[in-house]
Amino acid sequence: MATRVGKYTIRMDNPPSIIGFAAVGSKMESEGPLAQNFDLLCPDSTLGEQTWEKAESRLQKDAVNTALSKCQLSPPDIDVIFAGDLLNQCIGSTYGLRDLGIPFVGLYGACSTMAESLSMASLFIEGKMACRTLAVTSSHFCSAERQFRFPLEYGGVRTPTAQWTATASGAAVVGEKVSPPYVRQVCLGCIEDLGIKDANNMGAAMAPAAAKTIQRFFEDTYTNADNYDLILTGDLGTVGSDLMIQLLEKENYQVRAKHKDCGMMLYDLNNQDVGAGGSGCGCSASVLCSTILPQIKNAQLNDVLFIATGALLSPTSVQQGESIPGIAHLVHLSSREK
Amino acid sequence: MATRVGKYTIRMDNPPSIIGFAAVGSKMESEGPLAQNFDLLCPDSTLGEQTWEKAESRLQKDAVNTALSKCQLSPPDIDVIFAGDLLNQCIGSTYGLRDLGIPFVGLYGACSTMAESLSMASLFIEGKMACRTLAVTSSHFCSAERQFRFPLEYGGVRTPTAQWTATASGAAVVGEKVSPPYVRQVCLGCIEDLGIKDANNMGAAMAPAAAKTIQRFFEDTYTNADNYDLILTGDLGTVGSDLMIQLLEKENYQVRAKHKDCGMMLYDLNNQDVGAGGSGCGCSASVLCSTILPQIKNAQLNDVLFIATGALLSPTSVQQGESIPGIAHLVHLSSREK
Repeated sequence: MATRVGKYTIRMDNPPSIIGFAAVGSKMESEGPLAQNFDLLCPDSTLGEQTWEKAESRLQKDAVNTALSKCQLSPPDIDVIFAGDLLNQCIGSTYGLRDLGIPFVGLYGACSTMAESLSMASLFIEGKMACRTLAVTSSHFCSAERQFRFPLEYGGVRTPTAQWTATASGAAVVGEKVSPPYVRQVCLGCIEDLGIKDANNMGAAMAPAAAKTIQRFFEDTYTNADNYDLILTGDLGTVGSDLMIQLLEKENYQVRAKHKDCGMMLYDLNNQDVGAGGSGCGCSASVLCSTILPQIKNAQLNDVLFIATGALLSPTSVQQGESIPGIAHLVHLSSREK
Repeated sequence: MATRVGKYTIRMDNPPSIIGFAAVGSKMESEGPLAQNFDLLCPDSTLGEQTWEKAESRLQKDAVNTALSKCQLSPPDIDVIFAGDLLNQCIGSTYGLRDLGIPFVGLYGACSTMAESLSMASLFIEGKMACRTLAVTSSHFCSAERQFRFPLEYGGVRTPTAQWTATASGAAVVGEKVSPPYVRQVCLGCIEDLGIKDANNMGAAMAPAAAKTIQRFFEDTYTNADNYDLILTGDLGTVGSDLMIQLLEKENYQVRAKHKDCGMMLYDLNNQDVGAGGSGCGCSASVLCSTILPQIKNAQLNDVLFIATGALLSPTSVQQGESIPGIAHLVHLSSREK
C-alpha cells in the first residue's frame, strides 16, 4: 500500500522493482558518449520505415520488445502499459504499441513523460492493480522538428539555447519487489509557468518546475542533496540546468555537486552540434534505461532522483502568444529496498 | 487495496466515491435534450476568450471549479488531477488547469479520456496514493474542427457518418467511500485496429474496441447485460453503436436493451444537425457528469457501465494512409458499495 508523505510525495511501502529495461537510439546517439550502453542503435534514422512518425513508432516497439526479452517476458505477461510521446495525438505510442494487445494508458507530459509513465507503472504495482507494468516513451528528431519548428528541408539556423530532440526510446518493465533497481518514492509535479515565451529556450521554461518539484520532495521527506548520489534532471540542457540550480540555491538547497542532466549526458556538447543539449521524451528515457538503471542495479549508484521535465506548449499556443508552462515529475530510484 | 479480477478487470475493495461533479457546455448543448442537467451553459462558444483553444481551456477550468464548489472543496484539497483533451499537446488541459497548483497527470486517450481519467482518479484513492483526486476532460467544436478537419470558414459539407464534436467539459471529484456514486471496477482497454481508414466514420473505428472491452469485462466478472441498468458508451454515435451491438451479439452478449450512447443522448438527432451524433472528450464527460451521475447518486440507476471510446488517429496518420486504432476503457459505477 502506498503512503502519502507530506503534501506531494507518495512512498511505496513495498517498493516495486524495475525488472527489465532497454534503450534504443539512432545515429547521433551512436556518436555520443553513452553509445556503448544502448541496447540497439540504428544508424539510419528512418529505421527502415516510410515516414518519420512510423520510425518513431518503431523506436518504441523496439524498446518495448527488447526490454521484455531482456527479462524473459512477452506482451501477454504485462497487465498495463503506460506510454506517451511528443507527437500530435501521441501517435508515436499508439501506432507503435497497437499490436501488443496490452491494456494501454496513454499519457501526455511532453518531455516529462518517462517520469510520469514510470510513476504510474510503479504505483499500479504498489497498489496491486497490476502484477507487471511497462513504461515507455520516445522522441524522434525529424518528426519533432517538422511538427514543432520547421521542415528539415528549410535548413533553419538554430539558436544557441535550442536543444536537440533525441531520436531514441526507453522502456522499463516494473514488477513486484525482487531485486534492484527499486522505485521507492514518487513526487508528481504541478504545472509551473513563470512567463517564458521563447520556444527556443525550453530549458528555461522547464527549470522552475524542476526546482519546485525537487524542493517539495526535499520538504516532504526531510532530506536534501546529501541524501542522494545523483539528482538527474531530464532535458534541461545547459541553460535550464544552471537556472534550476540557482533557483534551488535561493531556497537553500545546494544540488550542483550531485546534479547531472540527461540532455547534457546523451551527447558530447563540445563536439556534437546539439546546442544546449538533448531533449525530447526519448532523451531522459534512453539515458535512464541505458546508463542509470544498470548502475543502480549493480549498486554503483544507491539513491537517484530522476526528475523528467516537460514544456507543455504547442505550436498553436506559441503562435497565440502564450507563455510556456513547465512540469516535472520525480521518481526516487534506489539500490536498496529501504 | 485493489484486486485483479480475471485478466483485465480491477476491483476496488473499498470503492471510492464520486463526491462532486459538474458539466459545462455551450450553445448546441443548451439546445439539446440534456440542457437542464448542465451546471453551466454559455451561449457564446468563445466563452469570452480570444481563441477557440483558450475557450476550451476555459470550459475545463469552469468544470473543475464548479465541481469543486459543489462539494465545498478548493484546489488545495485535491492531491492529483488527471486531465486530457483532443488538442495537439493537450493544451486544453495544460492551459486550463495551470493556475490551480494541483499535481497534474496529463492523459491522452482521445474521446476515451473521461473513462481513463476517472479510472486513474479512482485507483489512486483505492491505493491510498491520494485522499482526493479530480478527473476532467473537454472538447470544443471549433478547436477540433480546424485541427482535425477543415477551417470553419471553409464551410465543408459533412458526411452523414461524421459526428459533431461537443463544446463541453465534465469534471468529477473522487474521494474515499462516503456515499454513491461509487466506482466499483475498472477495465482498461487495449488498442484495437480493424483497418478502418475513414476519418469521417470514427464510430466504426471505435466500435470494435468498445465491444472487446465490454466482452472482456463480462468474461472477467461472470456477468452480462442483465446485471446492469445501463451500458453507456461514449460517442459511438448511431453507426458505431449498431456495429458494437452486432459485434457483441456474435459473442452471445445481448446489450441492445440496456445500451445508450452519450453521442446520441447529448443532442436531438432528429432536429439538430449533428450527423451520427456527438463526439469529443467533452461529450461523454458532460453526459456522465450532467445526467448519469445524479441518477446513480439518487439510485434511479444502480449499476452503470461507462465505456468511453477513443479513436487514436491524428491528421498526420490519416494523411499517411494509416488505419484508425480505437480504444475503450470501462468504469463500473454503482449506487451500492457492494
